[in-house]
Amino acid sequence: MIIDSHGHVTAPDSLYVYKAQILAHRGAHGRGGNLANDDDVKKALHSPVFGGSSHLDQLKEVGTDMQLISPRPYQMMTSEHPRLVSWFMEETNNIIAKQVQLYPNTFRGVCGLPLTPDVSPKAVLPYLEKCVKEQGFVGLLLNPDPGECTAHQTPGLGDRFWYPLYEKMVELDIPGHIHSSGCKSERLPYSLHFINEESVGVLSLLNSDVFTDFPTLKILVSHGGGAIPYQYARFEASSLRGKGARFSEKMRSLYYDTVLYSKDSLELLFKTVGVDRCLFGTERPGVGTVKDPRTGRWLDETRFTIEAIDWLTDADKKMIFEDNAKKLFNLKVPATAAA
Amino acid sequence: MIIDSHGHVTAPDSLYVYKAQILAHRGAHGRGGNLANDDDVKKALHSPVFGGSSHLDQLKEVGTDMQLISPRPYQMMTSEHPRLVSWFMEETNNIIAKQVQLYPNTFRGVCGLPLTPDVSPKAVLPYLEKCVKEQGFVGLLLNPDPGECTAHQTPGLGDRFWYPLYEKMVELDIPGHIHSSGCKSERLPYSLHFINEESVGVLSLLNSDVFTDFPTLKILVSHGGGAIPYQYARFEASSLRGKGARFSEKMRSLYYDTVLYSKDSLELLFKTVGVDRCLFGTERPGVGTVKDPRTGRWLDETRFTIEAIDWLTDADKKMIFEDNAKKLFNLKVPATAAA
Amino acid sequence: MIIDSHGHVTAPDSLYVYKAQILAHRGAHGRGGNLANDDDVKKALHSPVFGGSSHLDQLKEVGTDMQLISPRPYQMMTSEHPRLVSWFMEETNNIIAKQVQLYPNTFRGVCGLPLTPDVSPKAVLPYLEKCVKEQGFVGLLLNPDPGECTAHQTPGLGDRFWYPLYEKMVELDIPGHIHSSGCKSERLPYSLHFINEESVGVLSLLNSDVFTDFPTLKILVSHGGGAIPYQYARFEASSLRGKGARFSEKMRSLYYDTVLYSKDSLELLFKTVGVDRCLFGTERPGVGTVKDPRTGRWLDETRFTIEAIDWLTDADKKMIFEDNAKKLFNLKVPATAAA
Amino acid sequence: MIIDSHGHVTAPDSLYVYKAQILAHRGAHGRGGNLANDDDVKKALHSPVFGGSSHLDQLKEVGTDMQLISPRPYQMMTSEHPRLVSWFMEETNNIIAKQVQLYPNTFRGVCGLPLTPDVSPKAVLPYLEKCVKEQGFVGLLLNPDPGECTAHQTPGLGDRFWYPLYEKMVELDIPGHIHSSGCKSERLPYSLHFINEESVGVLSLLNSDVFTDFPTLKILVSHGGGAIPYQYARFEASSLRGKGARFSEKMRSLYYDTVLYSKDSLELLFKTVGVDRCLFGTERPGVGTVKDPRTGRWLDETRFTIEAIDWLTDADKKMIFEDNAKKLFNLKVPATAAA
Amino acid sequence: MIIDSHGHVTAPDSLYVYKAQILAHRGAHGRGGNLANDDDVKKALHSPVFGGSSHLDQLKEVGTDMQLISPRPYQMMTSEHPRLVSWFMEETNNIIAKQVQLYPNTFRGVCGLPLTPDVSPKAVLPYLEKCVKEQGFVGLLLNPDPGECTAHQTPGLGDRFWYPLYEKMVELDIPGHIHSSGCKSERLPYSLHFINEESVGVLSLLNSDVFTDFPTLKILVSHGGGAIPYQYARFEASSLRGKGARFSEKMRSLYYDTVLYSKDSLELLFKTVGVDRCLFGTERPGVGTVKDPRTGRWLDETRFTIEAIDWLTDADKKMIFEDNAKKLFNLKVPATAAA
Amino acid sequence: MIIDSHGHVTAPDSLYVYKAQILAHRGAHGRGGNLANDDDVKKALHSPVFGGSSHLDQLKEVGTDMQLISPRPYQMMTSEHPRLVSWFMEETNNIIAKQVQLYPNTFRGVCGLPLTPDVSPKAVLPYLEKCVKEQGFVGLLLNPDPGECTAHQTPGLGDRFWYPLYEKMVELDIPGHIHSSGCKSERLPYSLHFINEESVGVLSLLNSDVFTDFPTLKILVSHGGGAIPYQYARFEASSLRGKGARFSEKMRSLYYDTVLYSKDSLELLFKTVGVDRCLFGTERPGVGTVKDPRTGRWLDETRFTIEAIDWLTDADKKMIFEDNAKKLFNLKVPATAAA
Repeated sequence: MIIDSHGHVTAPDSLYVYKAQILAHRGAHGRGGNLANDDDVKKALHSPVFGGSSHLDQLKEVGTDMQLISPRPYQMMTSEHPRLVSWFMEETNNIIAKQVQLYPNTFRGVCGLPLTPDVSPKAVLPYLEKCVKEQGFVGLLLNPDPGECTAHQTPGLGDRFWYPLYEKMVELDIPGHIHSSGCKSERLPYSLHFINEESVGVLSLLNSDVFTDFPTLKILVSHGGGAIPYQYARFEASSLRGKGARFSEKMRSLYYDTVLYSKDSLELLFKTVGVDRCLFGTERPGVGTVKDPRTGRWLDETRFTIEAIDWLTDADKKMIFEDNAKKLFNLKVPATAAA
Repeated sequence: MIIDSHGHVTAPDSLYVYKAQILAHRGAHGRGGNLANDDDVKKALHSPVFGGSSHLDQLKEVGTDMQLISPRPYQMMTSEHPRLVSWFMEETNNIIAKQVQLYPNTFRGVCGLPLTPDVSPKAVLPYLEKCVKEQGFVGLLLNPDPGECTAHQTPGLGDRFWYPLYEKMVELDIPGHIHSSGCKSERLPYSLHFINEESVGVLSLLNSDVFTDFPTLKILVSHGGGAIPYQYARFEASSLRGKGARFSEKMRSLYYDTVLYSKDSLELLFKTVGVDRCLFGTERPGVGTVKDPRTGRWLDETRFTIEAIDWLTDADKKMIFEDNAKKLFNLKVPATAAA
Repeated sequence: MIIDSHGHVTAPDSLYVYKAQILAHRGAHGRGGNLANDDDVKKALHSPVFGGSSHLDQLKEVGTDMQLISPRPYQMMTSEHPRLVSWFMEETNNIIAKQVQLYPNTFRGVCGLPLTPDVSPKAVLPYLEKCVKEQGFVGLLLNPDPGECTAHQTPGLGDRFWYPLYEKMVELDIPGHIHSSGCKSERLPYSLHFINEESVGVLSLLNSDVFTDFPTLKILVSHGGGAIPYQYARFEASSLRGKGARFSEKMRSLYYDTVLYSKDSLELLFKTVGVDRCLFGTERPGVGTVKDPRTGRWLDETRFTIEAIDWLTDADKKMIFEDNAKKLFNLKVPATAAA
Repeated sequence: MIIDSHGHVTAPDSLYVYKAQILAHRGAHGRGGNLANDDDVKKALHSPVFGGSSHLDQLKEVGTDMQLISPRPYQMMTSEHPRLVSWFMEETNNIIAKQVQLYPNTFRGVCGLPLTPDVSPKAVLPYLEKCVKEQGFVGLLLNPDPGECTAHQTPGLGDRFWYPLYEKMVELDIPGHIHSSGCKSERLPYSLHFINEESVGVLSLLNSDVFTDFPTLKILVSHGGGAIPYQYARFEASSLRGKGARFSEKMRSLYYDTVLYSKDSLELLFKTVGVDRCLFGTERPGVGTVKDPRTGRWLDETRFTIEAIDWLTDADKKMIFEDNAKKLFNLKVPATAAA
Repeated sequence: MIIDSHGHVTAPDSLYVYKAQILAHRGAHGRGGNLANDDDVKKALHSPVFGGSSHLDQLKEVGTDMQLISPRPYQMMTSEHPRLVSWFMEETNNIIAKQVQLYPNTFRGVCGLPLTPDVSPKAVLPYLEKCVKEQGFVGLLLNPDPGECTAHQTPGLGDRFWYPLYEKMVELDIPGHIHSSGCKSERLPYSLHFINEESVGVLSLLNSDVFTDFPTLKILVSHGGGAIPYQYARFEASSLRGKGARFSEKMRSLYYDTVLYSKDSLELLFKTVGVDRCLFGTERPGVGTVKDPRTGRWLDETRFTIEAIDWLTDADKKMIFEDNAKKLFNLKVPATAAA
Repeated sequence: MIIDSHGHVTAPDSLYVYKAQILAHRGAHGRGGNLANDDDVKKALHSPVFGGSSHLDQLKEVGTDMQLISPRPYQMMTSEHPRLVSWFMEETNNIIAKQVQLYPNTFRGVCGLPLTPDVSPKAVLPYLEKCVKEQGFVGLLLNPDPGECTAHQTPGLGDRFWYPLYEKMVELDIPGHIHSSGCKSERLPYSLHFINEESVGVLSLLNSDVFTDFPTLKILVSHGGGAIPYQYARFEASSLRGKGARFSEKMRSLYYDTVLYSKDSLELLFKTVGVDRCLFGTERPGVGTVKDPRTGRWLDETRFTIEAIDWLTDADKKMIFEDNAKKLFNLKVPATAAA
């Protein structure tokens, strides 16, 4: 069974029309919304996207059995007014919940949180609880930079600022998937900001007491861990000067997805953190859904790339494709889906 | 011959005492300085550092014949008052020039520039010219974030803001070595900031017209290119959607040093950008100068790591260790040194 | 003939999906756009809107022969990044131009300008010239507060800051329609901000030398002139203390539209500024497109309200409904349309 | 009996000399003050002002029997240092209290509050209580923008920020008269800022729960309600889309004074909000105290303008001139005064 | 002959009423002013002030023959809006000019300049020229901190920022009297701010090239030079480490007035800077116009204090009381006055 | 016995190398430090400094028996990050404590506090207690401007903000020595900032209730009290207008050191505040450790200057040189030292 741990929602256009409206009227027209209806949601999943076939077809094309879907991060607008962020995030999560409800064999939901700069994560705990207990979400996006590259900086993930959220995650037994939202700096695009924030998040967590204080906390890092697996040795050096564990050992407190799109990088990841720490992920349809004219293949056909790595055993691959995701997200896979 | 392209000055203590003073009196005691005397400079190079032997001995221990030395980046304090930055940078460069003068077979200088936030690179061109023409520097540190993680952001390296510097670099035929200075954010240490800024710098350059406008511009990226060689495929995807060259091809407009300290990462780098784009570098003595208790070896014995990569040919290794550096920096190596 | 001088575009959903995207990727996906195609534009005008029938049908229902359409002001996002503002404004104007091209008997275009805070109007003059000369726009929206109620304040319309724009308007012989964009303050909704900014704009203009320096400048004030016709006597008092003309006389340097939705207010407007200064306008479909349950009629059936004012002569009404608009906007009405 | 609900104090020059001094020494000379002595206060009321006769004579000239006097709003300097604001406001209120004491048949006091930006109204409640219980004030000026058009914005009057004040007003059974202070923006003069802030205040109150939470709260809006009676229909439209009461009905939760100076506007006001909601007011001597050369009459002879409206009954006029004010302010009018 | 070099205007109350008004209406009432009429100006000089007799009588009481009068510094409000500063300063200077015109044997004028933060002194040169050439002013107040202790800092008096003013002063051959305006900090009163700014001004000038670049520039320091004559030896120490002149010698480039009110301090001043550098000054009526209950004498009877210093020769005293002032200010004293 | 109450530590170079490092790595290398070892500390005290002999020898040369040593104020960097300030201050204090331990007959310690802007003094009380009780410090530096001339202003010393510290000082029975740290303004050097802040501190304290609320609080003012003894009469004037004690009497609530370097100034000080309020101090080696070429003597040979004042009695001098310091600092002087 192939479980893609890193997918983002293909939402109806109405979600983005709604976003444009609330950013413009700022509440003057009332909250509105309630966009998660069966027809629109189905239509969105059956329309061509990202230059290819439909979202559902794209999964089939690469043999994905189940996908964890979360909000499109670059659209999350977390640096906007908290009221608007909250409305948009709830609409987005509702659409995801509707997709899971309509396609229970195919999708599971990872919710976005309406975290905004300068606001404690405490503020979103009741909503998180509702997402998990009432809407069936199995994980959450953990956004280390709600300020979106503006001057509003949020403490690193290793800071006690985040502890209320970690307590609730442990209580609910759900993982957090590190993924930042947009980037308003002129210096770098959001896509690189994702990578940089993953590096920042990993380092902040591993140089903190978080895993001592929350030994059962579960964190999944997007895009193969940012720069860290490639650059880990410079941090290994620092750790060898101190008294604690080696950095490379601490790296195994975290999980990493395989959204990398290159075989060499995937191999480096598996070697560096261990296959028991890696979850298959593609973000398909998404950034990698483009055909390489040299090969005629989609860049996000990551499944076949992994299958082609000859030094991985079948058990290794099963861990990557299925077992690790099931364990981390406590997935209850229906018999029909597994078939 | 082994040329280490990435080393930082081991300066006399007086340089840092001076730094503490000028930051405190801000000019009230006058400029002072003039620290680059033979005795202090020699003594600094012969005293134990970084938990090992002296700088000179550390080079010998790993068989380095020549090292390019530049200011210690994390000490460059580029976000402080421009007058103080300028004084400190000149003292530092003078010490480097003195080291090169005293050990002409061993060192070549890469100068720091007193770039500060909100100031055009134009302001430092006369000083750069002096460094190269009068003091014999063969390259410069190109600092993409003089603001040191504060709110003072500097345009990306692909912005026309930097063109006056690029013009002068082309005119002088010297390369810029991308390396940021300190980091005043609480979210990440300077060591990771280096990595992130290298990624930002590479992406900004490759998504710009810089190499079209300056085809002979020479840029060396520190630490194996930040996250980019590991994460390049997501940017490859974007480039395949556009009309320009593939991202992976454009990556070969740049040069990369080997300051990575792990064999897997080094192999990834060589495969991704090509050995003709890689320059041997260790930063030794520096962050990697620590012994791994498991192996009893220094982490920055990068030379032996590279030599142990069996798929590299002797010619490959010669390019990495010697030829690429000679070409990029126009190194005139004395016969005695080459011996 | 009934000419509605104040209408806003009913654009395809794709425009707002585009807006949401560019606000999120900030240019990383390239400019994209090119949304003004025949099919989408036609479909938008034939779909039900604002709780009623289609835009085109709504015009017919109240007998409007021709409507001047401009961008939806509250969506103009002029306080965002100038690059994004420019892209969005051009797409919007292109859609308007396409509507005019497709329905030449029904629509004329009034373009929005990509004015942003802290930028001189000089910057947009070439684009304005293109709108008028190449795309056939007959007027422009004059936004007195591109900062959208943020701390970025723009000089009043009477300030010389605006002179480059006024010069160009005179040269092109096109009027400016005062209309602000959104409002990011928590204290008031955009709808009231429109009114307040109209008052600010009128007072700033009339207490300045603008009409002395540009005697042929043509300015139309939205929504019946904000508060001014109702509150004019307090400013009359000030003018009687000074040496210049009476305020009530200076008010006749401007034109006012009839977007007021109440008979008493319309009568006050006509009496205060004179019918030769009033242009019929409804913003239909728009804020007034709602049925009053007491009367069963749309609030924006302004035409019938005006026709019911018994003290207006037929010539008065013709001025309001047709002549003033033709003169102000230099409208060339096709014979077929006038039929 | 003619009661003018909207008058401002004609204070001795010493008050403004005092203001200039405390703004200059900022407390270094001590508080000083104590300006409310019989002689100066009497002299101020008997000296010519605003280009006419004395304050007392000006009332007689138009037959005003009683006037409610409050601080001159544009002089209130509420955006200055809280200590200075408090000193100046107390001096001003003391002078008003002295005038009422000296002329008990002619004046009643409406106190100013030393509200400053970023300070909760809670801070002024003890002082308000003293004004009412010890000094006999019958109302207060409710300033929606203590920041005086600077970047220090205060929440709208509908916000819970104001609830402590509303509770105290209900407890003391006194009305608040909406009137802003100065305006430091270059874009508009304070006189228009008054109007705009009245519109903002009315909309904020009517779109909030204030009158649900404080059904007996009494609010009087200056200058005929800003723009709202003229522009109400656009807000009516919004209300018809929602579930609550019509906007035009909610408008009758408030009271409005007649400081408009034009007959057409007064008629619009009476028709729109009802004469039972209108209180006679002139601000005389004040902005309207200027003679119109065409008529040879003062603009603020509002009494005669209202008396000339033929469709108002005698009972209507009595409500406007007397009854509404007596009820709203709980005025105890001495027999001698009513004579 | 006794010439008091440091006196401030005793202006009519109307000046401060005017100040309060313009700070409140900010120009909305027009500029107004024109307060310098014979009656008001005479009355102000003949009314009791500062707890004693009239300004003119106070001069007679201590035998002052002539006084140089300038604006009251703490009232100068230089951190307010430039337009308002300019209006107020011109009114104040006009009143001074009127006093000089009315009492030509008693007064000479020292004008204030409408310098405001962030504005180059260049902006006020035409006005300064008018003051000197048309209104007969013999000197100017040189305000080193127009920002009045706010965050708007102005470069030190030794900075080239001030050169345009110095050039004009040399050209007009008039001295600048260092005197700051108000102080908006909560940490210190304006009276101490005067002292601190005099110290800052003296140090900045003497550690600069100003007197090399303008050898004929004439600067008078208020209040006996701030802290410098008392603290000079610490700066002497610094100067002995450098190459330039001794600090104590450079101090003699400046002039100092005697506004100190204590005999010991006066003696220290005379000894430290030399009597040829000291000008008699009292600021009477002013801060020192208070009777000491122990002696029954005014603190600002400085004349008698100086006369009682036995080690001063008659020539010394004549220099202090008369000669130095005549020379510095180029005073043309009428025969009648000198009598 | 000669006790110098105002001396600053001559620390090993390692302290300033450490400062440069922590300002650069900001904690990334860990705290490090622990610099107070016997060898380095002894060596620092025996090496030539300030252009003369060693610190210990310089004391002997002028016959100083005991010196109170505190951190070098201009190096205290109190406006930097609180964590770094705290580390640096602790290292500095530890070195002082080590010097006192090694030379118990010669030194006593006055500790610096890690006060930073916007932080209540409460935060440093536990550390202060440790300094006094565990490390034997006999006083503390009281820094009125931790913000070092930046926009971060700290309330005046008379403000209740400081009360927690004053309570603790009274409880521990130790004096505070007013001394500011650096100055980041371009307008004045730190050396003058010291003087200005002493004036500000004295005035703030004496115009407050501090000595009423803490009658046993002990405060020593550096550098002879800033400008105040020279300028006191202008504040005397203000006090004579009020109800409280005379300013000159209140000045005797404080103590003053003799760091002035000029005989006239010293005499003024003694006369103005009384010898029972003065403590001998030189800051030697320090700013005054320079030879006057005219006399061939060090400027900080203050002892001989005081001894040469003929109007001081032997008892006066003993108070200044010994008794006042013993009493204020509760000095326990070993018999050997007093010998």
